[in-house]
Amino acid sequence: MIAPELAEHFRGKRVLITGGLGFIGSTIARELVESGAQITLVDSLTPEYGGNLANIAGIEERVRVNISDVRDEHSFRFLIRDQDVLFNLAGQTSHVDSMAEPYTDLDINARSQLSILEACRHHNPDARVVFASTRQIYGRPRYLPVDEQHPLQPVDVNGINKLAGEWYHLVYGEVYGIRTCILRMTNTYGPRMRVKDARQTFLGFWFRLLLEGRALQVWGGAQRRDFNYVDDAVRAFLLAAVREEAVGKVYNLGDAHVLTLEDLAEQLTSMAPGSYEVVSFPEERLRIDIGDYFGDFAKIQAELGWAPAVPLEEGLRRTVDYYRRHGSRYWP
Amino acid sequence: MIAPELAEHFRGKRVLITGGLGFIGSTIARELVESGAQITLVDSLTPEYGGNLANIAGIEERVRVNISDVRDEHSFRFLIRDQDVLFNLAGQTSHVDSMAEPYTDLDINARSQLSILEACRHHNPDARVVFASTRQIYGRPRYLPVDEQHPLQPVDVNGINKLAGEWYHLVYGEVYGIRTCILRMTNTYGPRMRVKDARQTFLGFWFRLLLEGRALQVWGGAQRRDFNYVDDAVRAFLLAAVREEAVGKVYNLGDAHVLTLEDLAEQLTSMAPGSYEVVSFPEERLRIDIGDYFGDFAKIQAELGWAPAVPLEEGLRRTVDYYRRHGSRYWP
Repeated sequence: MIAPELAEHFRGKRVLITGGLGFIGSTIARELVESGAQITLVDSLTPEYGGNLANIAGIEERVRVNISDVRDEHSFRFLIRDQDVLFNLAGQTSHVDSMAEPYTDLDINARSQLSILEACRHHNPDARVVFASTRQIYGRPRYLPVDEQHPLQPVDVNGINKLAGEWYHLVYGEVYGIRTCILRMTNTYGPRMRVKDARQTFLGFWFRLLLEGRALQVWGGAQRRDFNYVDDAVRAFLLAAVREEAVGKVYNLGDAHVLTLEDLAEQLTSMAPGSYEVVSFPEERLRIDIGDYFGDFAKIQAELGWAPAVPLEEGLRRTVDYYRRHGSRYWP
Repeated sequence: MIAPELAEHFRGKRVLITGGLGFIGSTIARELVESGAQITLVDSLTPEYGGNLANIAGIEERVRVNISDVRDEHSFRFLIRDQDVLFNLAGQTSHVDSMAEPYTDLDINARSQLSILEACRHHNPDARVVFASTRQIYGRPRYLPVDEQHPLQPVDVNGINKLAGEWYHLVYGEVYGIRTCILRMTNTYGPRMRVKDARQTFLGFWFRLLLEGRALQVWGGAQRRDFNYVDDAVRAFLLAAVREEAVGKVYNLGDAHVLTLEDLAEQLTSMAPGSYEVVSFPEERLRIDIGDYFGDFAKIQAELGWAPAVPLEEGLRRTVDYYRRHGSRYWP
């Protein structure tokens, strides 16, 4: 549950969420229905992506679901009208897929962002827009933790296109006065994440493997990473949408607790009967792996008062519990 | 004329130039026909861009001209086969147009670069590729002169898309071993530049205004800039295509001589009867202007031995002479 004063901001507000049936989009929706916001979820339900109707189980009657693809600029021009807030989360998030199908990645992560912003510019220049960006645009860290001043050096097509998508938001803010804010997310996990396979994140797939009693595969294993529980990430999106200081800003999310992937696998397999094996990287992933990464979130902490609140162990436990109960809705 | 040892590298080589009927592309072609290279020029001859058949006057019989657009990925797949070198110069270069028609800019400067690189990857992974990038991707300089480590912070859609186009080259180099090199150009001027209007550069249009006896319009005027004469820029492209050290690298071009736009107008109007007036920025240009810019070219100087050789006054004089003789081919 979000803080009452934050919830108050959204009472009666019209909120549009792209990728709204996905992991983070649906979690935002679940928070905001309680605040009395009028919510429209836009999602293509493309099978390879994260959208899943199970994610809005229990709130189906309290949100409007609009099945459409962000590449469809025509429908978006209608959908954006009169919205107070746009949480812009739809994206192609698989690094490996971006190399195999670079045009698809370009169309979703760059071109559609441009058309979304053109729609805002022409049809709703007053909306607040929060864009879900990614640590991937920094590439291989030159120093740790990575702050927002770190050079941008994406190592794959996905990182380049996300970078372009992010910068359209900043330029449309600067030139046309659209009130945008960018969140560069680190690994985010929790209930409703895509767990079917490792296309989007290894961690999602680990939850499935764990609950199916199969061994987790750890690629490499020594890479250190940070993780945000979904409720913490969602709170950052809400703050970014309401606080005046957030307009035109770029913020890292992140967590002070850093651990290796092998340690994470160890921790997870202690929560349910399970095992893991450390394996060498598949070739196509090794070439675009970024090694150690963890983010410096001092800026959003100082300006918006955000910091992660859910410890990793607690978050992992909630997530395991969720998929133990609802796994059948997330994999065959 | 290029140095004999550089010319020797190109004897018998197959060279493809996108934007080959444009300013820099055609000047590369003029140099290389003398070296005995087999040259194919790809150009769409889109009227708003820089392609002009007048640019190859005198060498028409010694080059192959292929009229096609880089957005046509099908023809490019054929054209790239068996080429030794690709000078990849086709681009949408107008900053103002990129704001008015962002999709066109995206298609040419980002998507087409991806399809060009996909064609290289699948049909000619051994070609050397030199990509014409731009100082625009740095945005408003935080320090001067701007070196390659300067943060990338484009201020308009053109800068974002050029940045994406550049990074596709670097990622395809890193991941697939395509031997790419990036040149981030500053203001380049000389014979065969587009002078019809101010769409691409103010300086091109100034030559026309000067020779028509009309007053040059100087927006702002206090901005300091550096300028490269086209022969110098062309030598950088040739070095970037043959030197082993250049593979995978990003280099700034630039000039040590820096002056304000008003000083430049002063100098130019002393070469022919003419006048200039300082006017305030048009609103749509002011919002995306980058202020002072000049580039640090120490890296390419150290690694490839490149430095500009033609002083500004000499270059301006040659350019004025060229348009005095050939202006009728460049404007109605």
